[in-house]
Amino acid sequence: MKLKNYALGQWVEGTGKSTTLFNAVTGEPVAEASSGGLDFKAMAEYGRRVGGPKLRAMTFHQRAAMLKAVAKYLTERKDAFYAVSAYTGATKIDSWIDIDGGFGTFFAYASRGRREFPNETFHVEGPTEPLSKGGTFIGRHICVPLEGVAVHINAFNFPVWGMMEKLAPTLLAGVPAIVKPATATSYLTEAVFKEMIASGILPEGAVQLICGSAGDLLDHVTEQDAVAFTGSAATGRMLKESKAIVEHAVRFNMEADSLNCAILAPDAAPGTEEFDLFIKEVVKEMTVKAGQKCTAVRRTIVPAGMEEDVIKAIRARLEKTTVGDPSVEGVRMGPLASKAQVRDVGLAAERIRTAAERVVGGGDFAVVGADREKGAFYQPELMYCADPFAKTEPHDVEAFGPVNTVMPYQTLDEAIELARRGRGSLCGSLVTADPATAQKVVLGVAPYHGRLLVLDRSSAKESTGHGSPLPNLVHGGPGRAGGGEEMGGARGVLHYMQRTAVQGSPSVLTAITREWTKGATETTDAVHPFRKTFDELHIGDTLVTGTRTITLDDIVKFAELSGDKFYAHMNDEEARSNGIFEGRVAHGYFIVSAAAGLFVEPSLGPVLANYGLENLRFTKPVYPGDTIQVRLTVKQKTAKDTPEGGIPQGVVEWDVEVTNQSGEAVALYSILTLVRRAA
Amino acid sequence: MKLKNYALGQWVEGTGKSTTLFNAVTGEPVAEASSGGLDFKAMAEYGRRVGGPKLRAMTFHQRAAMLKAVAKYLTERKDAFYAVSAYTGATKIDSWIDIDGGFGTFFAYASRGRREFPNETFHVEGPTEPLSKGGTFIGRHICVPLEGVAVHINAFNFPVWGMMEKLAPTLLAGVPAIVKPATATSYLTEAVFKEMIASGILPEGAVQLICGSAGDLLDHVTEQDAVAFTGSAATGRMLKESKAIVEHAVRFNMEADSLNCAILAPDAAPGTEEFDLFIKEVVKEMTVKAGQKCTAVRRTIVPAGMEEDVIKAIRARLEKTTVGDPSVEGVRMGPLASKAQVRDVGLAAERIRTAAERVVGGGDFAVVGADREKGAFYQPELMYCADPFAKTEPHDVEAFGPVNTVMPYQTLDEAIELARRGRGSLCGSLVTADPATAQKVVLGVAPYHGRLLVLDRSSAKESTGHGSPLPNLVHGGPGRAGGGEEMGGARGVLHYMQRTAVQGSPSVLTAITREWTKGATETTDAVHPFRKTFDELHIGDTLVTGTRTITLDDIVKFAELSGDKFYAHMNDEEARSNGIFEGRVAHGYFIVSAAAGLFVEPSLGPVLANYGLENLRFTKPVYPGDTIQVRLTVKQKTAKDTPEGGIPQGVVEWDVEVTNQSGEAVALYSILTLVRRAA
Repeated sequence: MKLKNYALGQWVEGTGKSTTLFNAVTGEPVAEASSGGLDFKAMAEYGRRVGGPKLRAMTFHQRAAMLKAVAKYLTERKDAFYAVSAYTGATKIDSWIDIDGGFGTFFAYASRGRREFPNETFHVEGPTEPLSKGGTFIGRHICVPLEGVAVHINAFNFPVWGMMEKLAPTLLAGVPAIVKPATATSYLTEAVFKEMIASGILPEGAVQLICGSAGDLLDHVTEQDAVAFTGSAATGRMLKESKAIVEHAVRFNMEADSLNCAILAPDAAPGTEEFDLFIKEVVKEMTVKAGQKCTAVRRTIVPAGMEEDVIKAIRARLEKTTVGDPSVEGVRMGPLASKAQVRDVGLAAERIRTAAERVVGGGDFAVVGADREKGAFYQPELMYCADPFAKTEPHDVEAFGPVNTVMPYQTLDEAIELARRGRGSLCGSLVTADPATAQKVVLGVAPYHGRLLVLDRSSAKESTGHGSPLPNLVHGGPGRAGGGEEMGGARGVLHYMQRTAVQGSPSVLTAITREWTKGATETTDAVHPFRKTFDELHIGDTLVTGTRTITLDDIVKFAELSGDKFYAHMNDEEARSNGIFEGRVAHGYFIVSAAAGLFVEPSLGPVLANYGLENLRFTKPVYPGDTIQVRLTVKQKTAKDTPEGGIPQGVVEWDVEVTNQSGEAVALYSILTLVRRAA
Repeated sequence: MKLKNYALGQWVEGTGKSTTLFNAVTGEPVAEASSGGLDFKAMAEYGRRVGGPKLRAMTFHQRAAMLKAVAKYLTERKDAFYAVSAYTGATKIDSWIDIDGGFGTFFAYASRGRREFPNETFHVEGPTEPLSKGGTFIGRHICVPLEGVAVHINAFNFPVWGMMEKLAPTLLAGVPAIVKPATATSYLTEAVFKEMIASGILPEGAVQLICGSAGDLLDHVTEQDAVAFTGSAATGRMLKESKAIVEHAVRFNMEADSLNCAILAPDAAPGTEEFDLFIKEVVKEMTVKAGQKCTAVRRTIVPAGMEEDVIKAIRARLEKTTVGDPSVEGVRMGPLASKAQVRDVGLAAERIRTAAERVVGGGDFAVVGADREKGAFYQPELMYCADPFAKTEPHDVEAFGPVNTVMPYQTLDEAIELARRGRGSLCGSLVTADPATAQKVVLGVAPYHGRLLVLDRSSAKESTGHGSPLPNLVHGGPGRAGGGEEMGGARGVLHYMQRTAVQGSPSVLTAITREWTKGATETTDAVHPFRKTFDELHIGDTLVTGTRTITLDDIVKFAELSGDKFYAHMNDEEARSNGIFEGRVAHGYFIVSAAAGLFVEPSLGPVLANYGLENLRFTKPVYPGDTIQVRLTVKQKTAKDTPEGGIPQGVVEWDVEVTNQSGEAVALYSILTLVRRAA
């Protein structure tokens, strides 16, 4: 079977010499891949010219809906992908991580896109920045999609998840992508990509696919493009230095393999639940995906004196880990991705053994349901390095397979120092039931890690494990791990956007951001804003209410009704004693309640409910005799999808300012309401 | 005078060949600079070993206080710096931007450090991320200081501000720095640095200074270091590709000169106030610092038909701009930084003239109070490019001096396209009084800009101008501008920190972040938390209150007292009609008030005031007959400095959960209180 490339909106076969891809279990050819004849420059331009404008015309909520629809469509077809995934040597669990994990990332970004981004084509970030005393000149940050194309260069170990975790934030940002999976397992990526195109959900030009070499693609990137790379550090560094990337200051995000560690805390001694959790986690990290994960544990850091127990326990579990054809019942670990990987891992393990002794593996081993010589099988190997401060190899040489080194420490400071010897990791684990140990170790190793897992009995059942990057947490790490950062919720979306500071008058900023800012034009008319539907309300619509004088009787009655008889409301002398008040003061909650009394239009109308309140500050005390007044202004509007059988509605956020008789603000906040849309 | 370097905590003279630095006005030698003999590797190690730990042991609030103290100390001595600044050719205004602007950046970060960062050594970023259904496994992001050293390579044009704008976020982050100013004006940087050291405010090892070449310093950076560069794109690219930076994935932030534009909108025609503002801004950008600003306007984009008026008006103002010795009364523009700059700017202007005609400058010109041949004087030059879509030079060649090219556009889309031809700029300006034009142009050019200024008559008086980066807004730009980002408030601090995702149980996360998270241990004892001082309260201290059944009578009374008679509270049928409620519902504000009634301990005690409320959500309606109960938990504590003569106090944030008789949450929020410290 010859894989196809998806370029310029067409499925095309590569010409010229192709690469043969093999079934990792049987060694038989699976597919041929070639990107020969593709015009890479034209592909980049097509993405920018066709895909970009279409995606940028959509709002975040529309892009989120698109991600969700794609994920649903693919999920319905996932059985077919599992069948193809088996060729890569993946067990059921391995495939689940790759396939369901990938689709899950689309679902997660779909939901985040709706919750954390506006129903607009751009994003307003952070609060208004005051830039002047008089308030006529202010600033704000906006984030807009890059107008180029994203190039995604993925690793062979997660042919589906690798594509999806990069595509989700990119498409949500409004940026088209060119996907270049590692050739070895690109047949699985292609299978999923085909369905993604067949779904017809993505706009034209949003995605393209290269199966085979990326050719001269990176020579054609420009200042609005972005490149995201996952793979070996050596390749990543080479790409990062390529001429066009440096010359045009192209964003380059790199996620490289690292020497991740798992630390056993002194309290998690043999016999504790935590000890067992640690052993289970380490063995899982060695055997899931046959250890071919950039996040896998490579260094097992344990208290001196517990080495033997640790090694014994790991050995016992590894001996029960059946290696073979994952389609055979009972097989727990499949082959590596290719015979070439078997060679590479073997060479790396040999280098580690110059500094450590092998305590598990290395002999003969059984392979169930497959020919050991034809498939890419590798027996798990555990090393023991007695003097990890004197040796560098266990901290530096990565065997990208089921290979791990146990090393002892004397003190927690030593454990921290060993973790840091990895010189930058994607993730690390600590198993402890002691919160103080957790704090010390986490803060001690955090500068060297993108992610840290603290495991104990209370979280073990629900823990997602050391090796799993999650869409809502950042993925990436400093130094050796490449210095990049992906996902992390909204953060990952911003990697594909330009942040721009905008300065001007409040009215100009309101027009640009579509969010009312204090000082901008206020529109008032005869109709109370609570009588207007979502569609009739405009940003800046303002109600200035009548006034109300607050009496001591109000305060007493409010205290009675609420039950809140705090001394500052009830006793003049005590109120004065605390250095803040000049005497009995009205309850803040009463001011907010009385403000509602002033601005609410009571009769049945388009306003359905007030469901929240944000950033309330009581800026000045209100004393008996003070007179309050309210300004209520439409700050922001967000249209919502109509719930099944429900009332069409939107969210209206109102800016509220309560002032006293001197015009001083006494309370500032915003309220969130649901407002009915036009019939 | 031989400048000194500050290395390993000592002032040392460089050995070997030194560079002579000249007075830009008189051409006379000012100082000699040499960094010969410095051990750059040792300097980096000293910063990491001595300065880093000291800074990291301080909390953000302590580091903020340190910045403020330094800024105050330097401000008191600023007259001396103005005297030295004059040698660089700076006018009073130029010096003000550089010197007061630099100190202002320290003040700004000092204030931000207190407001936006915790009184802790690390920073917790963003909300808790739920990672499991049962809530026993959650995630959170923390940011910790990099444990390396920051290398700051600055440009010659702002010897003070350049140092301060990089130092402020770096020191606030807790990272030591090595400052390497451009040699040409390093005598001014050295003068300020000397006072900074003399102040004795900074801890040992926090800062070092190199006057002269940085030697092999960049060969010694490692994965925990960060390099920030401001200067020419060519130099920046070279440094970015240097071996150690690439190999260790060292953070490299680059801010390069760019071809910034100012756009005149069609509505801002001759005769309008906006037209005059535009001319004034463009001329200011040409002449302030003699046009030697990386943010200066280089391209003046105007509606076709208005070119002549624009050129005429600019010419008229330039003719009134007296060039000469800035110390002479009436001189508006000083010399360039050096004779070498005069040559470079002349050559660049010549290249621009291959695509544009010179309409101002080029002839003889008067220099007041100085010898034109000895000083580095340059006459402002304005070009006109009739066909800016056919020519590349005006968009590409930067003359780093008082040189600017006017170019016409037909439509707003053309204006946007011309702005984008700069291929990435630090900033751009638009002068318009039309908000719709502002929105179109800003969103159109934002992907190519780090900052955009919209100017009109309403903000002109308070505008800080096109060319001024501000500490609360990002500074940097894509593509040609280097692809970097500095300042931007807290964002700039995070450039010097590692973001790490931490996963674990709520109790573990609470222990690490010192912020209580739902699901973590709750501590209760016999003493009401309102009876405890700030120091006696602990994170996780919890009060579970008694219950209260809400009656229809309560609702009616609350409606009467507050005046809020919204239909959903008053009329059963109308309440039901909106699809959200099942009948008359209690006011949300009443629930919050009644909750306070349940949790408040009324008698005089350590709690001084409730000054705010955050993230209130009414998660379920409360109907007559429902019974509510409150859980109040200490979420976070922030010690405050005692105000002059005031009561020692701290901020305590409480997590509040109001539940109904079924245990369902009806309201979730947190409240902010001031609590007295222990006597």
